[in-house]
Amino acid sequence: MTRAPQAHLDALAKPQRSLGTLETLAVRLMTIQRRLDPVTRPRALVVFAGDHGVVAQGVSAWPSAVTGMMVATIAAGKATSSALAAAHGCDLRLVDAGTLGPPLAAPPQFYRDAGVARGTADLSQGPAMSGAQFAAAWAIGTGEAGEALDRGAVVLIAGEMGIGNTTPAACLTMLLAGAPLADAVGRGAGADDAVLIRKRDVVRDAVERALPRLAADPVAAIAAVAGFEIVAMAGFFAEGARRGATLLLDGYVATAAALIAERLSPGTAAMMIAGHRSAEPGHGAALAHLGLAPLLDWGMRLGEGSGALVALPLLDSAAALACDVALLADIGAARAD
Amino acid sequence: MTRAPQAHLDALAKPQRSLGTLETLAVRLMTIQRRLDPVTRPRALVVFAGDHGVVAQGVSAWPSAVTGMMVATIAAGKATSSALAAAHGCDLRLVDAGTLGPPLAAPPQFYRDAGVARGTADLSQGPAMSGAQFAAAWAIGTGEAGEALDRGAVVLIAGEMGIGNTTPAACLTMLLAGAPLADAVGRGAGADDAVLIRKRDVVRDAVERALPRLAADPVAAIAAVAGFEIVAMAGFFAEGARRGATLLLDGYVATAAALIAERLSPGTAAMMIAGHRSAEPGHGAALAHLGLAPLLDWGMRLGEGSGALVALPLLDSAAALACDVALLADIGAARAD
Repeated sequence: MTRAPQAHLDALAKPQRSLGTLETLAVRLMTIQRRLDPVTRPRALVVFAGDHGVVAQGVSAWPSAVTGMMVATIAAGKATSSALAAAHGCDLRLVDAGTLGPPLAAPPQFYRDAGVARGTADLSQGPAMSGAQFAAAWAIGTGEAGEALDRGAVVLIAGEMGIGNTTPAACLTMLLAGAPLADAVGRGAGADDAVLIRKRDVVRDAVERALPRLAADPVAAIAAVAGFEIVAMAGFFAEGARRGATLLLDGYVATAAALIAERLSPGTAAMMIAGHRSAEPGHGAALAHLGLAPLLDWGMRLGEGSGALVALPLLDSAAALACDVALLADIGAARAD
Repeated sequence: MTRAPQAHLDALAKPQRSLGTLETLAVRLMTIQRRLDPVTRPRALVVFAGDHGVVAQGVSAWPSAVTGMMVATIAAGKATSSALAAAHGCDLRLVDAGTLGPPLAAPPQFYRDAGVARGTADLSQGPAMSGAQFAAAWAIGTGEAGEALDRGAVVLIAGEMGIGNTTPAACLTMLLAGAPLADAVGRGAGADDAVLIRKRDVVRDAVERALPRLAADPVAAIAAVAGFEIVAMAGFFAEGARRGATLLLDGYVATAAALIAERLSPGTAAMMIAGHRSAEPGHGAALAHLGLAPLLDWGMRLGEGSGALVALPLLDSAAALACDVALLADIGAARAD
């Protein structure tokens, strides 16, 4: 780049620094993309789905069957992620990384059944997945990132659907970002007090077992408490970053995947923009660990990539600012003072 | 409406209230538009320009000539507002409500010269405008709103360009929202300490003269401290609200105009959504007076409608949520607890 990103913005026909956070975002985009005219199209969302054996412990307000129902809803183009992706011109892919099913009756073109297994093992009873399963889930994500980039995408979003997946996300946020238990465990998609207490016990015990292995065998420690869709997202982020994509991060579960990606493929977080801070109390700690400041603080906690999709047009504004505004010098204006 | 807006969102295929502020925004859109399937296109921005006699008092970091330069930049499609409007599919009109000029050499189709006068009188020496000038400026705005709505617009944004116009905005925020001097007067487009002190003195004295007339003759009191582009925006808001448009509010100067509109045409604010809270310290008080909570708090202070344009796609997300997501009942899911 011939100029530094902030110097470029300071030279535009507007009072310097007069767009606040939009300028911070534009600088981040320019820095990630190493160009003063950043791009935000085409963009692609991949929603990874998975089920979680730990739901048997009563850690979720919803039964695992809802994962399959929501996969079918996304496949039918009628989920929140479908609506938001369409509204903002974002390609959407749906990948089964390991749900309980049932198989889709009439799967659409944008769907892929890549299931590693029919749900993870119960992480409260032993490792959620084996090392081989971890590698398989990771490869689903790297493959999806590569295909999206081959199709021309410049901004990548990973979304997830998986009843119970704030439990592995809480484990990973404790394990990899050092968040305290009380922050890491939230109500997910609507846990009541009784569910919350069970969830906290499960997470505490699982992290206690995993933590001693983290330094020597990080993959084993992570695999013990993760989910297939989460590991797939981590591979997606790592490969996207390696190939120079701009990664727009969704909520708590996606950020848990980002923690994995940054741990196993350092530098991944440097390619990330945090779309929002979710209602889950541990999300702020996870983002801070990655050095990311969220664009929105709107109390969103839906998943499916929805928060990132809401934030996506903010990137369009930042790119338009960097690309399409005249230079102050070219319009002949000067300050009075 | 057959259901209440929040009940509609609660029935969608997602955990209830899981989209936080996006749901609040969707409810506001549905309430303003009195429909469960709100619309956000077509949308129109009108940028009103004006100059201010009070700039002679040294209240601005920039000379009045910059107003004309920026009008020319917007006319050339190279300003921040041009870039953001294009990015988000928003029609843009540019209306001279009373600048010092010079006339545009080759005015584009979307430009209108409606100047009430070549800048206001110096509000530190007497009324900024006469009652007749106030009426003329107001009519510019009502006419523009009517034309935009006749062209089909459903969301209206008013932007402004006018060197020195945070001084009348500060006066109006004190006069109409009761903000204290220290909050109302900010640095605008970059005032240094010396400019800020002069600006504060000017605003204090002008409001002291105008306030006693407010109850008996609000138009005279407002006209004494306003600007042509500000009054035009007020007329634009009042007429837009009267005809059922959704009004998306920009920053401090636009909100000063909103205060005028609500004072003279009560109920206007009920049709408004606040796009953002600006870096100007008085903006929060003005928004609170109107009962509005800003969508973004990004420290933006550019004007031209830019903050509203950055917020505009957030309305698109809210509308997509309300319109395009399946009902939970239709996908057959139920909670476990």
